[in-house]
Amino acid sequence: MKLAVIPGDGIGIEVIEQALRVLDAVVPGVEKTHYDLGAARWHRTGETLPDSVIDELRGQDAILLGAVGDPSVPSGVLERGLLLRLRFELDHHVNLRPAKLYPGVATPLAGEPPIDFVVVREGTEGPYAGNGGTLRKGTPHEIATEVSVNTAFGVERVVRDAFGRAQARPRKHLTLVHKTNVLTNAGDLWFRTVQAVKDEFPDVEVAYNHVDAATIYLVTDPGRYDVIVTDNLFGDILTDLAAAIAGGIGLAASGNLDVSRTNPSMFEPVHGSAPDIAGQGKADPTAAVLSVAMLLEHVGESEAARNVEAAVAADLAARDPKAPGSTAEIGERLAKAAAE
Amino acid sequence: MKLAVIPGDGIGIEVIEQALRVLDAVVPGVEKTHYDLGAARWHRTGETLPDSVIDELRGQDAILLGAVGDPSVPSGVLERGLLLRLRFELDHHVNLRPAKLYPGVATPLAGEPPIDFVVVREGTEGPYAGNGGTLRKGTPHEIATEVSVNTAFGVERVVRDAFGRAQARPRKHLTLVHKTNVLTNAGDLWFRTVQAVKDEFPDVEVAYNHVDAATIYLVTDPGRYDVIVTDNLFGDILTDLAAAIAGGIGLAASGNLDVSRTNPSMFEPVHGSAPDIAGQGKADPTAAVLSVAMLLEHVGESEAARNVEAAVAADLAARDPKAPGSTAEIGERLAKAAAE
Ligand SMILES: CC(C)[C@H](C(=O)O)[C@@H](O)C(=O)O
Ligand SMILES: CC(C)[C@H](C(=O)O)[C@@H](O)C(=O)O
Repeated sequence: MKLAVIPGDGIGIEVIEQALRVLDAVVPGVEKTHYDLGAARWHRTGETLPDSVIDELRGQDAILLGAVGDPSVPSGVLERGLLLRLRFELDHHVNLRPAKLYPGVATPLAGEPPIDFVVVREGTEGPYAGNGGTLRKGTPHEIATEVSVNTAFGVERVVRDAFGRAQARPRKHLTLVHKTNVLTNAGDLWFRTVQAVKDEFPDVEVAYNHVDAATIYLVTDPGRYDVIVTDNLFGDILTDLAAAIAGGIGLAASGNLDVSRTNPSMFEPVHGSAPDIAGQGKADPTAAVLSVAMLLEHVGESEAARNVEAAVAADLAARDPKAPGSTAEIGERLAKAAAE
Repeated sequence: MKLAVIPGDGIGIEVIEQALRVLDAVVPGVEKTHYDLGAARWHRTGETLPDSVIDELRGQDAILLGAVGDPSVPSGVLERGLLLRLRFELDHHVNLRPAKLYPGVATPLAGEPPIDFVVVREGTEGPYAGNGGTLRKGTPHEIATEVSVNTAFGVERVVRDAFGRAQARPRKHLTLVHKTNVLTNAGDLWFRTVQAVKDEFPDVEVAYNHVDAATIYLVTDPGRYDVIVTDNLFGDILTDLAAAIAGGIGLAASGNLDVSRTNPSMFEPVHGSAPDIAGQGKADPTAAVLSVAMLLEHVGESEAARNVEAAVAADLAARDPKAPGSTAEIGERLAKAAAE
C-alpha cells in the first residue's frame, strides 16, 4: 500500500504521528510519503497545494490527513486552497462520518441514549462549490453571494451510496435531511432523487427531516437515525453536532471517498488543528486512529480495521475520561492493543 | 392597538386561541382582525397571500401568527408563498428568538446547564432570498441552484440591532456565527460588518464561531452565549437546536421585527403546525403565549409583557411536565395568572 500523509497544522501533526504508529503496528511495511502542506508552507512559499502535488497524490492508494488551519493565515485560504481543493480535485463525493457512542464514553445528553448512525455527506458540490462573488466590496452597496450548485449527477451518486450503506446495516433505514420547504430547487432535486433511487432498494425504509428539525432529534432522540444522507453544508453542521453528542470531536473519524476509486480516498479526523492546545501533547489521537481504521477498511484490510476499532473501543471503556493520558501515551496504548 | 391574527394551520389555530385569551386578560379591548390564510384557503382558492391582504396588514400595529403548513400542500408552497412572503414583504429583518431554560423545565442536556441567550437571525435575505433555479429538470443533466444573497445594507442593520441588544444585557456579549472559512464572500461581509459596527459599541465583547462549532457549544457549553447574530439559514438551524436544549419547541417564542417600524412586526411560536397532533387539544400554547409577551413588549405594553412572562415562568415551575394539561387548560391557567 502506498500512503500519502498530510499532517497539516497544529494538533494535526501530533495526532497523525500516533495514527501512523497504530497503522504500523497492524499493517507493517506501508510505503509512506509525507507532504509538507499547511500554514508553514503557505508562509514560506505562498503555496497551499501545488498542482504537482495533486498529480503525485493521484498515484497513491490513500491519503491520511491531520488537520488544516492556523490563526496566522486568513480564514478560508487553507480551507479552500488545501482541504477543499483536495476533496474537489480528487472527487471525494462521499464524505462518510460515523457517529457512535462507545461504552464508557460520556455524552452531553441526559439519559445516555444509544447513538449509532452514519452520515453520508455530499462532498463535491452544494454551497461548498466556491461559486460566489462580491460586488462593490467595502461600500454601503456591497453584495456578496454564495451559490449552492446541485447536479443530478452529483446528488444521485451520493444518494445511491447512502442507500447501499443503509441496506448493508441491520436497521436498513435512511433519512434524507434538507430544507425542501425553503430551498425549493435544490431540495426538490434531492427529494426526487431519493424517491427515484428508492425503487432499487425496496427493503430500505426512507424518512425525510428538515435540517432544523434534525438538530432537534439529534439531541432528543438520536436513536432514530441509522443512515443520514445530506448536502455538503448541512452535513458539515450535522456531523459536528453528531460528534458532540457521541462523545466529542476528539473521537470523530471521517472518510472522504471517491467511491468510483478513480482517485485515492482521504481519511481525516473531524476535528480541526486546535491551535490553542497544539504542541502540548494534550490532543486525543483517537479520532485520527479511528480514521486509520476507516482507511484500512477502504483498502481491503478489514481484519486490521476491526483490530484497530476494537482496540479503541476497549481503551475508551477502560480509560479515565478525565485523564486519558497524553497524545503519545494514548497512541502507544492503542498501537499495542491493536497489534495483539 | 390594532392586531392582525393569522392562526394558519393545524395546531396554529389551537394555540392562537389560547394566546388571545391571555392577551385579552392583560390588555382588554385590542381590535383584532382575523385572516383566513393557510392550507384551507389555498385548497379553496389557490391563494396563499393576496396582495390586498398584504396592503391591509400594513395598516395594523402588529401581527400574531400561529403556524403554517400542511402535508396536503406541496412543500414550500405555503412556506414561501405565505410565511416567508410576510417576512419579506413586511421587511422583518430582525428575527428575534430567545432561548431561556426556565426553572422546572427539563432539558435533554445532562447536568442542566444554565441557558439564557437570544438569537438575532437575519430575516430578509441570505439563502432564503428565493434566488435559485432549475435547469434540465428531471433529466440526468439537471442543475439546481440556490443563491444566498447578502447585502451590506441587510447585514449591517441586523448586526447593529444585535449589538444594541447585547449592550442592553448584563453580560454585553455578542457572538457572530457564520462559516467564513468556506462561504468566503458572504462570511467576509458579515465578519467585516461586525468589525466595523463594533466601534460604536466599545463595551460589547465580540466572539466568532463557525456554525458547525456553534452546534457543538450549544450542547456542551450553552452558557457561553448571550446574544448570537447570524444569517437566515444558520439562524433557522441554530434556533431549533436552541429551542430543543431549552425545553423544546413547545416553549420557543419568536418575533419577526421591522425594527424601523415602517411595517407591523409579526410574532409567532417557533414550532410548526404539527398536523400529527392537530385537533386533539394536546398542543402546548406556551410558545404562542410567550410570543404574545414579545408582542406586548414591542408595542410598549411592557408591564403586561412582564406579567405574561411571569405567569408562564410560574406555570412552568409548577406544572407536571408529563401532564401539563390540555391546550385550553394551560391557556386558562396562564390567562388567569397573567391577569392577577
Ligand atoms: C475546515 C472546514 C473547511 C471543514 C468543512 O467545512 O468541511 C470542516 O469543518 C470539516 O467538517 O471537515
Ligand atoms: C416553516 C419554515 C419556512 C420556517 C423557516 O425556515 O424560517 C421555520 O422553520 C421557522 O424557523 O420559522
